[in-house]
Amino acid sequence: MTKRVYDFAEGNRYLADLLGGKGANLAEMTRMSLPVPPGFTITTEACREYLAAGTLPQSLIDEVAGHLRRMEAAMGRRLGDPDDPLLLSVRSGARFSMPGMMETVLDIGLTDATVAGLARHTGDERFAWDSYRRLIQMFGRTVCGVPADAFDEALTTEIALAGVPSETQLSPDHLRTLVETYKKIFLEYAGESFPQDPTEQVLRAIRAVFASWNTERAVIYRRQERIPADLGTAVNVQAMVFGNLGADSGTGVAFTRDPATGARGVYGDYLANAQGEDVVAGVRNTVPLQELAALHPDCFRQLTGIMAQLEHHYRDLCDIEFTIERGTLWMLQTRVGKRTAEAAFIIASQLVDEWTIDLNDALRRVSGTQLDHLMFPRFDLSGAPKPLATGVPASPGAATGRVVFTAEAVAAADGPAILVRRETNPDDLPGMIAAVGILTSRGGKTSHAAVVARGMGKTCVCGADAIDVDPAAGRFTVGGREVREGDTISIDGTTGRVYAGALPVLASPVVRYFEGELAPDAEPLVAAVHRILSHADAVRRLGVWANADTPEDAARARRFGAVGIGLCRTEHMFLGERRALVERLILAADDAAREAALAELLPLQRADFVGILQAMDGLPVTVRLLDPPLHEFLPALEDVTAAYARAEALGAVGQREAELLPAVRRMHEQNPMLGLRGVRLGLVVPGLYAMQVRALAEAAAERIRAGGHPRPEIMVPLVGTVQELEIARHEILDVLASVEGAPAIPVGTMIETPRAAVTAGEIAGAAQFFSFGTNDLTQMTWGFSRDDVEGSFFPRYLDLGVFEVSPFESLDGRGVGRLVRLAVEEGRAVRPGLKIGVCGEHGGDPRSVAFFHEAGLDYVSCSPYRVPVARLEAGRAAVAQPGRGSDTR
Amino acid sequence: MTKRVYDFAEGNRYLADLLGGKGANLAEMTRMSLPVPPGFTITTEACREYLAAGTLPQSLIDEVAGHLRRMEAAMGRRLGDPDDPLLLSVRSGARFSMPGMMETVLDIGLTDATVAGLARHTGDERFAWDSYRRLIQMFGRTVCGVPADAFDEALTTEIALAGVPSETQLSPDHLRTLVETYKKIFLEYAGESFPQDPTEQVLRAIRAVFASWNTERAVIYRRQERIPADLGTAVNVQAMVFGNLGADSGTGVAFTRDPATGARGVYGDYLANAQGEDVVAGVRNTVPLQELAALHPDCFRQLTGIMAQLEHHYRDLCDIEFTIERGTLWMLQTRVGKRTAEAAFIIASQLVDEWTIDLNDALRRVSGTQLDHLMFPRFDLSGAPKPLATGVPASPGAATGRVVFTAEAVAAADGPAILVRRETNPDDLPGMIAAVGILTSRGGKTSHAAVVARGMGKTCVCGADAIDVDPAAGRFTVGGREVREGDTISIDGTTGRVYAGALPVLASPVVRYFEGELAPDAEPLVAAVHRILSHADAVRRLGVWANADTPEDAARARRFGAVGIGLCRTEHMFLGERRALVERLILAADDAAREAALAELLPLQRADFVGILQAMDGLPVTVRLLDPPLHEFLPALEDVTAAYARAEALGAVGQREAELLPAVRRMHEQNPMLGLRGVRLGLVVPGLYAMQVRALAEAAAERIRAGGHPRPEIMVPLVGTVQELEIARHEILDVLASVEGAPAIPVGTMIETPRAAVTAGEIAGAAQFFSFGTNDLTQMTWGFSRDDVEGSFFPRYLDLGVFEVSPFESLDGRGVGRLVRLAVEEGRAVRPGLKIGVCGEHGGDPRSVAFFHEAGLDYVSCSPYRVPVARLEAGRAAVAQPGRGSDTR
Repeated sequence: MTKRVYDFAEGNRYLADLLGGKGANLAEMTRMSLPVPPGFTITTEACREYLAAGTLPQSLIDEVAGHLRRMEAAMGRRLGDPDDPLLLSVRSGARFSMPGMMETVLDIGLTDATVAGLARHTGDERFAWDSYRRLIQMFGRTVCGVPADAFDEALTTEIALAGVPSETQLSPDHLRTLVETYKKIFLEYAGESFPQDPTEQVLRAIRAVFASWNTERAVIYRRQERIPADLGTAVNVQAMVFGNLGADSGTGVAFTRDPATGARGVYGDYLANAQGEDVVAGVRNTVPLQELAALHPDCFRQLTGIMAQLEHHYRDLCDIEFTIERGTLWMLQTRVGKRTAEAAFIIASQLVDEWTIDLNDALRRVSGTQLDHLMFPRFDLSGAPKPLATGVPASPGAATGRVVFTAEAVAAADGPAILVRRETNPDDLPGMIAAVGILTSRGGKTSHAAVVARGMGKTCVCGADAIDVDPAAGRFTVGGREVREGDTISIDGTTGRVYAGALPVLASPVVRYFEGELAPDAEPLVAAVHRILSHADAVRRLGVWANADTPEDAARARRFGAVGIGLCRTEHMFLGERRALVERLILAADDAAREAALAELLPLQRADFVGILQAMDGLPVTVRLLDPPLHEFLPALEDVTAAYARAEALGAVGQREAELLPAVRRMHEQNPMLGLRGVRLGLVVPGLYAMQVRALAEAAAERIRAGGHPRPEIMVPLVGTVQELEIARHEILDVLASVEGAPAIPVGTMIETPRAAVTAGEIAGAAQFFSFGTNDLTQMTWGFSRDDVEGSFFPRYLDLGVFEVSPFESLDGRGVGRLVRLAVEEGRAVRPGLKIGVCGEHGGDPRSVAFFHEAGLDYVSCSPYRVPVARLEAGRAAVAQPGRGSDTR
Repeated sequence: MTKRVYDFAEGNRYLADLLGGKGANLAEMTRMSLPVPPGFTITTEACREYLAAGTLPQSLIDEVAGHLRRMEAAMGRRLGDPDDPLLLSVRSGARFSMPGMMETVLDIGLTDATVAGLARHTGDERFAWDSYRRLIQMFGRTVCGVPADAFDEALTTEIALAGVPSETQLSPDHLRTLVETYKKIFLEYAGESFPQDPTEQVLRAIRAVFASWNTERAVIYRRQERIPADLGTAVNVQAMVFGNLGADSGTGVAFTRDPATGARGVYGDYLANAQGEDVVAGVRNTVPLQELAALHPDCFRQLTGIMAQLEHHYRDLCDIEFTIERGTLWMLQTRVGKRTAEAAFIIASQLVDEWTIDLNDALRRVSGTQLDHLMFPRFDLSGAPKPLATGVPASPGAATGRVVFTAEAVAAADGPAILVRRETNPDDLPGMIAAVGILTSRGGKTSHAAVVARGMGKTCVCGADAIDVDPAAGRFTVGGREVREGDTISIDGTTGRVYAGALPVLASPVVRYFEGELAPDAEPLVAAVHRILSHADAVRRLGVWANADTPEDAARARRFGAVGIGLCRTEHMFLGERRALVERLILAADDAAREAALAELLPLQRADFVGILQAMDGLPVTVRLLDPPLHEFLPALEDVTAAYARAEALGAVGQREAELLPAVRRMHEQNPMLGLRGVRLGLVVPGLYAMQVRALAEAAAERIRAGGHPRPEIMVPLVGTVQELEIARHEILDVLASVEGAPAIPVGTMIETPRAAVTAGEIAGAAQFFSFGTNDLTQMTWGFSRDDVEGSFFPRYLDLGVFEVSPFESLDGRGVGRLVRLAVEEGRAVRPGLKIGVCGEHGGDPRSVAFFHEAGLDYVSCSPYRVPVARLEAGRAAVAQPGRGSDTR
């Protein structure tokens, strides 16, 4: 029979999948002989069985009963003993922390029969009746769905009747009366009397904790935090200890070092004569943990000893919860503590200095997402400004601007604007694009505003629900204060805080270090980043290249550590002043006109390439031949149509309108993403690719003459079948052979259509390298285009759990990733050692980098600012523990 | 060592891959002891080697030399023998017939030294010199690229000098002079003297034939005929026999029965005192083969005997080429003869009657393409109208209409119009859509006009190059005759013929039979179709269903043999008068307005479903929930923008303009094919799918109450991930459970995104059936949309050989097909016996049906008119010979 229940002494910290985080750590502390109240854990597996079947199996009930009997023996108390009853807590404990999401029932075992025994045994009648009323309240709410308000109202009434200032002043008699009232409330809402059988209380609490896995708020939280929906929670049943048995009792939380900065020392809070839930509720003020040294010197000494022991044992910052019951210290929880991004790097580096962990461990302790956050500018908070409100930190960055409420007002604003809306919808898109930041009062990380802002890399705070937005009145109010359209505010997308006025902005020291403006030892954070990133570079197998289209971007990428350009897009070189030339090329009436336009473009392209080859001298520069549909260089059909209609209505159609309309109409495509673009252009527009190839080859020859070491490569976009590549390659090689003094230039292809992936073996025969274009590959594999869907149905899909994360943000391992793996395998089978990279935006996404490492790619290429993140993640992937699931979901 | 040369006696007809069609059949006739001049065949493998290496390997030269010596021994003549020289022909012979595409050199072995010996031996000096001048001419043109014009001019000059009416009147002396002139021409253009070594002549001719595989016209022909480019050609070297040695000599072609109608008898043509090339050139008039009975009774008797023997041996209609040399009959070629679609069915049925073949063979002898052609209406040619011109039959059908030259004129035409252009381009698209037929004077089967017309199923004749189109003058001229805009013409897309005036049109007797208007024994063609199609039904494993959206279409599909509706699209039910209702649904300001619109749509949808369930009573009807983007039901953005701009310019913006523009702009998508459509609509628009499901369930319940046997199924479109399907399925099952009296309705999904295919194993867990939507699957796998590319770059791609056929016409087996196979395998692994069909247009494509059979699908679903074609092809797939490559390329 499957073992479904583990005594704390039977488990350990490596069983978190089975016992949940809390249970595994309680077991670990028990094994370390720390003072943990006895108890046991019911497994996540049992939870999954319960959720599937809807009932607790009898065998589980029997197993729980056995463990309860052993606890009774260990404690020398019995459940339901009217003289000296054993009391229990029943708490959830999932694999991943879901703070406040799940359920807890304390003081189980109290009944009409045992409450007096508790009073006698503790000598504290008030405590006993207070505990009983708390049980009825928690059990009622958690197990039977009795509304919390009903109990709260009764409590308020009782306090008023008693004429005391707060519940702590209620006498035992008042509390006894309150228990009677609570029992009536329970009967009324639950349709039954409060259960007087302690075993029934335990089993029903267990069932309620299991069921709480699927409450709406838990489901939403998991989606937002990317926690798989099918894990289930464990349940911890533990003997109660009490911090509210008088002045020699209390409860507290502590960190083994400062979680905000990583500084060593004792950090935490203590609250005398209280239970843990009182700390959480913030009913009374806590004192700094240091004061415990004066209050309970013995306990303080024991506690600091245990903290040192835990940090040494876990080899990391730990946070703990403890209770002192009449002078005896009890450990109720420990775990590796959360920390800020800054502290993560500093602590990891400190622990290496202390010989507690090695550099591989340090690398595993930080993440690309943390490094990414450290690279955004921050507000200077030295003036200790008080936030107006705090919302969900939806898209990082620090933005200051004038408050506006509509897209039109953004356009009309004098200077940078922050768009403030209750929530956004597709109509707001132009405003979102033009604004420097977005603030909403509703919605979470999957709201339209959040999804679109992240997609655009724009600072965004969502769901700041203290704010009341009134666009009609041209203002929002928060905490009685009014902020009018045109007023300046500052929003911090990394912390979710909203401030009045303009806050000074500080450049990221980490970026200043990458830019060479700060020395590696300038400050502890920079030193830690330098140390850990250097180690990542030493251990990683994946190369990190960058996507850059200009010499400036290329130079930055190089400073940030890129060793090549994986994607140099040439379409940007067709914009600006050259647009007129490109328009001539497109509208050319005959070969001569087209060739003339191409001839004028050639020297301009060549100069572009000279600049970028110079910036990357000695390193590979992968140039992608023109990819977008040509009509992108013409005005939009609806604009031309409208202009024509307007001119026609006024009887004033000019030559340009008359010429442009039919041309734009002819070139118009219903689905440009699926139209005449990529290699198709190269095969259909005579001379276009030849001009680009010639410009590149001539630029390389020029660089060689100037003593440089150019390493250009040519990449053919949007290939679907090897025939396309063979024809394009043939033309490219002909042009290359005709340019004197050009170096050897490899010709490869993008793998970005599903067909290219499934025929990669054939394509490898004609390609000297592959580069996955995962943006297009994602679009075609799923059949949706980023532009069209990210702001339309993605928020709904994230809410429904169709995705756990946008497949444009993190690579979809099961679908798109399967095609990537297949193409790598079959491409290399035909051409062993084929160089393979990725140049979609996934190349800089932390989770995706791990996937590309495992799929066997040679390099990732990403935007220059993402290069350090990719370096770090590539290092992390190289030292990943076996069995760590790094496949993106 | 690989054997590269086969004596005719060593080969047989099953070696066509290696020996080419001609070589294999010459070998077969040799084995049958028929009178075949001795010779040997050089394999296609040797050709491929030559094409790869660029030279003939010495070992091949040695092998040829050995075979030549054996031929000399067999014939008792030697190459280059001045007394009695052996003369040879060197002819190409590929696996698939490429008439006129490849090269031939006759009379090899003639030199200055041997020509006199030939004259002596044959006693015909004129013949000898005429043969020599033919050799120089053919060798010069074929081997050395001497322009044909040069020789033709010299011949014309000589005829003029001689003062005779034609070349046949030239005396031996004239011919001797002509030989000298030809040799000078040869020297001038080839830069060398005409080679006097017969072995050199042979080897150079062989090389030239090999090289002719890659001439431009051969390459183009292969692309058009879908012949793989890498097969190579065999070369047949054979002793010459001469039909031009006097009145007792001659040459002819014959068929073992009438290739136009299948009627039994002797059919063919004979030309006395001539070589085969004279028949082909049509220089002189042939006589019907029957007259040979009087001219050469012995030969005629022998020939008819051989014809009977061949037909019996090949068990099919054969065509043959023969030569009579001074009273001796020689067989030069035979093959299974080409025939019309009508004859194919009739002959196959006749051969069954004659116990020559069985019904499986008969089924293999006909094709879906032939049946398809038989289903188009034909012109009544009983008046024996003379065609104005003949072009390429690019898209079948018979169309009569007024001549127009521009898209605008089509719109303005009074009645049906035929668009006549030199060639078409994307600007002509509106005209092509509105016209009943398209006629061009330039371009072949891969021209824009041909590709687009086939895609639209519109009658089209291309490249009728006798026609001179002059749109500016509003007329075209052909053979001196003028046809003006507005005149009526008739074009036959099945034969490529163009007629003046309106020809009467005859309905297809085959269609009349399917419609029940003709009995199966009404006429021989119908009887043959009935017999073979019935056999196909008996042997096929694939079911044939139909795509139908109306009761009328469903009823027709049923008459044509469909046993289910595989795709009932519901979008057509949203058009017409209901568009206003749908617009209300889309523009609904709140839930109540949307629900009101849905409530009004419900009874209309229910009535639609009642009709179709009634028409298909007892058979499955697969209803696809709404798929297209909602904005397809709104006016186009550019129209609304233009209307608004016009109204604004005139200061007259009405309420509708003001309301519609922002709504249309909000719903507008850059790439609607990749936007909010399919199941995404179902998950995002509340109540939409529920309304459709309720309408279907209520319709089924109504049918049951009326005593019917409805078998509806529900299909969810455009699923990318199992989560989408699970959520939709959940909602569907809830609605179904709420409708009283509804039958059990299976819920399945389309597999039409690449991601659905690669995650089919997961999706099968939530789907009761799969249906491949190969249109979308092709679009997304390749990354192009049919609407945008078929008229833009497909013609160029077909010309370049990127495709051999549009992947929208025949399933792309290597790319899209690989995804289909993978999904079938992994879907069935999870759900054994999973029902799988296809409902894209490929379901009715002959080549694709074979693929679907092999991939293990349960049924194909196609348009009603394609149902008989699919039935036939499904039968053919079931009786396909092992090793027959039926994978689409």
